[in-house]
Amino acid sequence: MNQEKSEFKLIEWISRNRPPAGDDVLTDIGDDMAILRTGGDKILITTDILLEGVHFDLDTATLAQVGYKAMACSLSDCAAMAAIPFVAVVAVALPNRMSMSQAQQLHQGLQSAAVNYHCPIVGGDTTSWDNPLAIDIAMLAKPGKTDPVLRSGAQIGDIVLVTGRLGGSLLSGRHLDFTPRVAEAQLLTSLATIHAMIDISDGLSSDLNHICLSSDVAAVIDEEALPLSSTALESADPLYAALADGEDFELLFCVKPADAEKLLRDWPAKSPLEVTRIGEIVPCEKTDLPRMFLRNSAGRLTLLPPGGWEHFRD
Amino acid sequence: MNQEKSEFKLIEWISRNRPPAGDDVLTDIGDDMAILRTGGDKILITTDILLEGVHFDLDTATLAQVGYKAMACSLSDCAAMAAIPFVAVVAVALPNRMSMSQAQQLHQGLQSAAVNYHCPIVGGDTTSWDNPLAIDIAMLAKPGKTDPVLRSGAQIGDIVLVTGRLGGSLLSGRHLDFTPRVAEAQLLTSLATIHAMIDISDGLSSDLNHICLSSDVAAVIDEEALPLSSTALESADPLYAALADGEDFELLFCVKPADAEKLLRDWPAKSPLEVTRIGEIVPCEKTDLPRMFLRNSAGRLTLLPPGGWEHFRD
Repeated sequence: MNQEKSEFKLIEWISRNRPPAGDDVLTDIGDDMAILRTGGDKILITTDILLEGVHFDLDTATLAQVGYKAMACSLSDCAAMAAIPFVAVVAVALPNRMSMSQAQQLHQGLQSAAVNYHCPIVGGDTTSWDNPLAIDIAMLAKPGKTDPVLRSGAQIGDIVLVTGRLGGSLLSGRHLDFTPRVAEAQLLTSLATIHAMIDISDGLSSDLNHICLSSDVAAVIDEEALPLSSTALESADPLYAALADGEDFELLFCVKPADAEKLLRDWPAKSPLEVTRIGEIVPCEKTDLPRMFLRNSAGRLTLLPPGGWEHFRD
Repeated sequence: MNQEKSEFKLIEWISRNRPPAGDDVLTDIGDDMAILRTGGDKILITTDILLEGVHFDLDTATLAQVGYKAMACSLSDCAAMAAIPFVAVVAVALPNRMSMSQAQQLHQGLQSAAVNYHCPIVGGDTTSWDNPLAIDIAMLAKPGKTDPVLRSGAQIGDIVLVTGRLGGSLLSGRHLDFTPRVAEAQLLTSLATIHAMIDISDGLSSDLNHICLSSDVAAVIDEEALPLSSTALESADPLYAALADGEDFELLFCVKPADAEKLLRDWPAKSPLEVTRIGEIVPCEKTDLPRMFLRNSAGRLTLLPPGGWEHFRD
């Protein structure tokens, strides 16, 4: 085999070559969490592995921050499905050089997120090796007041919205202490029917592309509408920062136009979190055509290639 | 803080310092799987991380074998609870040097176990870095025909039994292609009431110690009764191999004497797997006294310290 190497191509290959999963697996590979049926209930599961030197750097992050971030990434997956975090299990590969006290600091960070988001850590695996720190969180969630929201439900004509401000998360350190939008997702689903949702981990353009591919639609983003973080505004290319920096862990979602109006009207004025309309869903006539476009203030469209972080590339 | 460094001391510290987990968490840290209540049902969860250079070596194992082993370790946890594997999620940290084809071989190994044990892989996380391979499996299981079997139920007077033959798993390569005792655990629970069970991952003496501590009992093992693998028999110290080598992934369990007799009588003669009585559970009068003893053919007792593998030691 001599194939182009890419995280997304590998996931596509795995997805294409997987055996049938059975009736109790309602949604599997290809969303923020898998959805399972257990008895009369639904349960959701996700796993995320964080690696030293890739997702965090121990020169700039404390071990407590790393523990918090590991849990927060999975909590953000729950938010993306509008699900309620239930429990987590934690597996760590500790560097042998680490002290007992350092391992405890890591766990204090994990526990701070577990307590704040009512998602107890119910088990784990502690290993060690002569290599950098790796932490895996597997998290279970239960549906909130609505059915879990998938990536695949975007409809032509939908409005695309985003919570918060984008870009510069790695530079500002926000990726270490961000707020997973668990409560905000519940508020969103109480105000409107969310057709499709994802959390922005790889970068807006990359994650919007996931929605477009899953929903078989295209999207137009108004570049002047993008809510830029202060760090993005200070950067050399604020627009690129908002589109491709990643690790914003904000929610990107699609609703029909009337619901978008209602949502923007009813969103609590007191909320410290903004919700911003950034574009719309349009048809995609051929599956191999580009699916994302940027529109400038003059209404001119340019292609928006999926950018942001991708693992496992040459 | 200046504390002795040890995997088990760290787990003890985590266990002591964890916040309350809530009513839906029936069993958490300290068994092979956590047991959760979802609606009227119970669901179990475990996580295991396998590390290159610690749990496998790519000079002697193929990537397909590594994938199989990663799944099989978690399947063995399900067996230890007498639970039925349900679904798995897989997170991998791939070395950047690895090719697309190599990543696919790893997944073929994972899938072979998933298919054989009816435990579909429903999601995952694919990352990469300039360090060795790490694979985490989080697995869900459902109770079998009986309630899940804990480590904590051993009673004084119980007989200690073990499936299969012990020792030399790493040397013989059996740790790469062992059979998780999922079906055998169901057969065991259909033949007798299992008071306590664990799978032998760290080594018989280490895992028996977990049962003794969880159940607050002690144990006497008859050294001549231990079923030795052919690799253990060929080693310099066959007894030590059986007690401490680890990665046998056999079941170690306790039943009352009448059930042990019934079980040994009713165990299918045609089964390729042996079940052997290796000792008994005795009282432990003070919690800080040794909990395990070896008995030789003359009936003389010597202390059996918990041996086997432990992570995160200086």
